[in-house]
Amino acid sequence: MSTFSRFTPLIQSLPATVPFVGPEAIERQRGRSIAARIGANESGFGPAPSVLLAIREAAAETWKYADPENHDLKQALAGRLGTSPGNIAVGEGIDGLLGQIVRLVVEPGMPVVTSLGGYPTFNYHVAGHGGRLATVPYADDREDLEGLLATVKRENAPLVYFANPDNPMGSWWPADRIIEFAVALPETTLLILDEAYSETAPPDSVPSIESLIDRPNVIRTRTFSKAYGLAGARVGYVLTTPGTAQAFDKIRNHFGMNRVGVAAAIAALADQAYLEEVVAKITSSRDRLSAIARGNELLPLASATNFVAVDCGRDATYAKAIVERLMGDHGIFIRMPGVAPLNRCIRISAAPEAEMKLLEAALPAVLKSLG
Amino acid sequence: MSTFSRFTPLIQSLPATVPFVGPEAIERQRGRSIAARIGANESGFGPAPSVLLAIREAAAETWKYADPENHDLKQALAGRLGTSPGNIAVGEGIDGLLGQIVRLVVEPGMPVVTSLGGYPTFNYHVAGHGGRLATVPYADDREDLEGLLATVKRENAPLVYFANPDNPMGSWWPADRIIEFAVALPETTLLILDEAYSETAPPDSVPSIESLIDRPNVIRTRTFSKAYGLAGARVGYVLTTPGTAQAFDKIRNHFGMNRVGVAAAIAALADQAYLEEVVAKITSSRDRLSAIARGNELLPLASATNFVAVDCGRDATYAKAIVERLMGDHGIFIRMPGVAPLNRCIRISAAPEAEMKLLEAALPAVLKSLG
Repeated sequence: MSTFSRFTPLIQSLPATVPFVGPEAIERQRGRSIAARIGANESGFGPAPSVLLAIREAAAETWKYADPENHDLKQALAGRLGTSPGNIAVGEGIDGLLGQIVRLVVEPGMPVVTSLGGYPTFNYHVAGHGGRLATVPYADDREDLEGLLATVKRENAPLVYFANPDNPMGSWWPADRIIEFAVALPETTLLILDEAYSETAPPDSVPSIESLIDRPNVIRTRTFSKAYGLAGARVGYVLTTPGTAQAFDKIRNHFGMNRVGVAAAIAALADQAYLEEVVAKITSSRDRLSAIARGNELLPLASATNFVAVDCGRDATYAKAIVERLMGDHGIFIRMPGVAPLNRCIRISAAPEAEMKLLEAALPAVLKSLG
Repeated sequence: MSTFSRFTPLIQSLPATVPFVGPEAIERQRGRSIAARIGANESGFGPAPSVLLAIREAAAETWKYADPENHDLKQALAGRLGTSPGNIAVGEGIDGLLGQIVRLVVEPGMPVVTSLGGYPTFNYHVAGHGGRLATVPYADDREDLEGLLATVKRENAPLVYFANPDNPMGSWWPADRIIEFAVALPETTLLILDEAYSETAPPDSVPSIESLIDRPNVIRTRTFSKAYGLAGARVGYVLTTPGTAQAFDKIRNHFGMNRVGVAAAIAALADQAYLEEVVAKITSSRDRLSAIARGNELLPLASATNFVAVDCGRDATYAKAIVERLMGDHGIFIRMPGVAPLNRCIRISAAPEAEMKLLEAALPAVLKSLG
């Protein structure tokens, strides 16, 4: 294939990966629609009706670029979280922000610490900047805080990634343990505390804003993609010190936010009643998912997220077969962790009852067919 | 200010710039709304009614991530342009794509060629990757093709940026001269041919797709932000060889596109009747702008874009005073080129008649007040 010959050596060394195959690609491959889209930890409960209204109203303004300073969204976030707009940077979802953070910190060859089996898109960005991953296995299906800390110190790593609650396992740590971890890190190590799932977590597992906001080496990432039901809007943000937040202004795509998405996020923040409603639905859907798993003699793991990881009790081949049969025979889209021993599990997103019913009906047949 | 201490040396050397101050920031500063938003080359004619409908319909699907392969949009673009989906990469507006291209090619210290006074956001990305700009002055208010070529060769530059039609001057070259330029470039130099304004250009100034599509060192960038009226949707794309297009898959934020914006772009492509209508309106608004300028004894430059650069006949201080008075006294938002000798001009975007009337009424007063 005819390709420009002078991309950087780093670029030439990279594969043209897609971190995840999207459900649309699966639909095209199968030539049919997915019946239950419960694999990407989106929220089938959707955004609030007030948010849909805000999107429809913002449509007429979509000929305008969004405010590059994201002033109104930062104000709204600061008000809601009890912090200052200067502590916030906004970006195109956590994925986009992770790419920026890696670029701010990582030069080729540098060690970056994460959990073995943690978020693949973070690993993708590290590879894309030539970083070298130093991974720490999960311990009892939780990210291993002590192991992460020891590895940071051993490697003198400038960057460590830690998600709480965790994806793909749904596990979590109490807030005081996370603060302890953050405080124990060298000042020369930046912690990404990924809180994509914070809205669905037990309150005592989410450190208060004040507890970490003055630490220039801690960046908390959050999103409107999960509980707020706005994955397609691409709005994420970070919480950190004003000095660290300003670093994003050095490299971000200032006019990169879409205007309708920002309007949707502001409307979503204003409708906390709906958020509470959805969180209750997610909690109850987690229970439903766990019951379905148990009813099939599988072991659901406790979850603080909008999904449940289910231990299928055998190896990755078995879990993969379940994922594939659910799709192939029933059009049910789920995913699974990519790395042992996590990949004995399947991962299913919370969703409305219609999807739960489809899963409930399909799972016994799939397991029976696999024997 | 308390900032993480171990950002890369390159990051530490960068200022926290905003390439452009947004109109919203001006509104906040003044405490009042802008009366005529004709400074950012957005399209006040807006997107098609069919596009607004598509946005409103897509709202309900915004809980889903967009297809990371952008399959449907690429198909629609390929069909419209008479090329193949493999020749296309999609990104978050041309600004986002420019950042990716620079990252693909530029290592610290590398020379990058552009016109002196050309697109500041491109320069921002080059600085953000440590590149060194080698600039070529405009000649007769057009980008200087011969000068750009000579500078590429002298510097052995891996990257050259050229916009046709040009921003901020609105000037253009005929297609055959551009093809000649592209063909004359070394194979080790990547040409960014920025065609953000191609829809409003004379047909014979836009090279055919076939004429350049087999050149791995040519990337044409296009957008839905200008004639299609979707600046806020953040959808841009590149046309190049499949091999060069695949390089974007190595570094892009695969789930970075917003779902509503993509739906809007697909709908916009399907409504070419509306595009024709808008292009006619833009052409007529350019004439109107030129007439207003001439009526005030200013010199409008010929334009192939959705704006008109107006030579105010004196220096940058004078042009700047006009920009500031139009805003300060009349709430009219326009911009001006940043570099001499282009900055003897002001730059005004085509817009509906209401905005033209405001400008027509305000400009004589402003010029009179400046003497």
